[in-house]
Amino acid sequence: MAKVKISTQVNPFPMPVTLVGSLVDGKPNFFTAAWINRGDYTPPCVMVAMNPKHHTTRGVKDNGTFSVNVPGKKHVIKTDYCGINSGKDVDKSKLFNVFYGKTETAPMIEGFPLNLECKLMKEIEMGFDHIFIGEIVDAYAEESFIKDGKIDLVSMEPFVLMMANGKYHLVGRELDDAWGAGKKYKA
Amino acid sequence: MAKVKISTQVNPFPMPVTLVGSLVDGKPNFFTAAWINRGDYTPPCVMVAMNPKHHTTRGVKDNGTFSVNVPGKKHVIKTDYCGINSGKDVDKSKLFNVFYGKTETAPMIEGFPLNLECKLMKEIEMGFDHIFIGEIVDAYAEESFIKDGKIDLVSMEPFVLMMANGKYHLVGRELDDAWGAGKKYKA
Repeated sequence: MAKVKISTQVNPFPMPVTLVGSLVDGKPNFFTAAWINRGDYTPPCVMVAMNPKHHTTRGVKDNGTFSVNVPGKKHVIKTDYCGINSGKDVDKSKLFNVFYGKTETAPMIEGFPLNLECKLMKEIEMGFDHIFIGEIVDAYAEESFIKDGKIDLVSMEPFVLMMANGKYHLVGRELDDAWGAGKKYKA
Repeated sequence: MAKVKISTQVNPFPMPVTLVGSLVDGKPNFFTAAWINRGDYTPPCVMVAMNPKHHTTRGVKDNGTFSVNVPGKKHVIKTDYCGINSGKDVDKSKLFNVFYGKTETAPMIEGFPLNLECKLMKEIEMGFDHIFIGEIVDAYAEESFIKDGKIDLVSMEPFVLMMANGKYHLVGRELDDAWGAGKKYKA
């Protein structure tokens, strides 16, 4: 198979889709974040690359807190809306019913299946975006998505961003066991 | 809907699945990395959380380079194998045909649809893992996955890790347009 060089401005894999929330001048604001993942095992952290000029980012810096809200497929329109409109131009504070946890300044979306309440630990200045690292100080799930004491991601119907193709896709069928499939390998 | 508090040790969304590669004592080694994403827009970067004790990590630090290799569904067994076996115990250098780019020290997997060649820019020490930030200095794709000059992620048949459920899942059907669905929102 022939390999070709492509642009280094490449978005090479399916990405998680979340809304990062913060309080900006006392009002909840949300930013569609797909450049996000877990950033440490313990204390449990998330890392997210966001532009420091974003409206949401100002709230993150002002309060030292933020939320990560994971949508299900039925929330795709509002989720995308938060990505194509800045809180500088539209008021996103009425889009969702929000609730607060112990930090009191990280607005979490009631209707979304899963919410993380985060305290800003580090901010890494990059060339363009900054990487914000937050400790997960509390996590909330809709009760109906808990099975045998654990969250069931599949029933949450999350979706991913295929950024290279400009599309959201549902998560599809099970392929194999993680920490299991590899046992079938024979050298 | 009732919200309940859950463990903060939560893996809340579908995660990309990649093999991070490095040269350890001159031999290619690979680590299954799912805590990964883009970390900056320009220069184009990736960020990945990995334990500094991992075998692959030593190679990243020694050479200041690493690769990110994106598998398709047919590579799931070898991909998982690299996650459940350490290069300290098994020799992973014979698992794949590899090629090298301009850095000469970032082993890239020939058979995988997409490869990023990265130069280590920053290493952020966390409580447990470290976050490695690499500039994408070159990117390679299998020619058959290029359509109209762009990569077509869907035809690569990538998969995601549903870590909360311990399963790999295929990417499913298209849900909506990114930077488009939100235009349907009426306040």
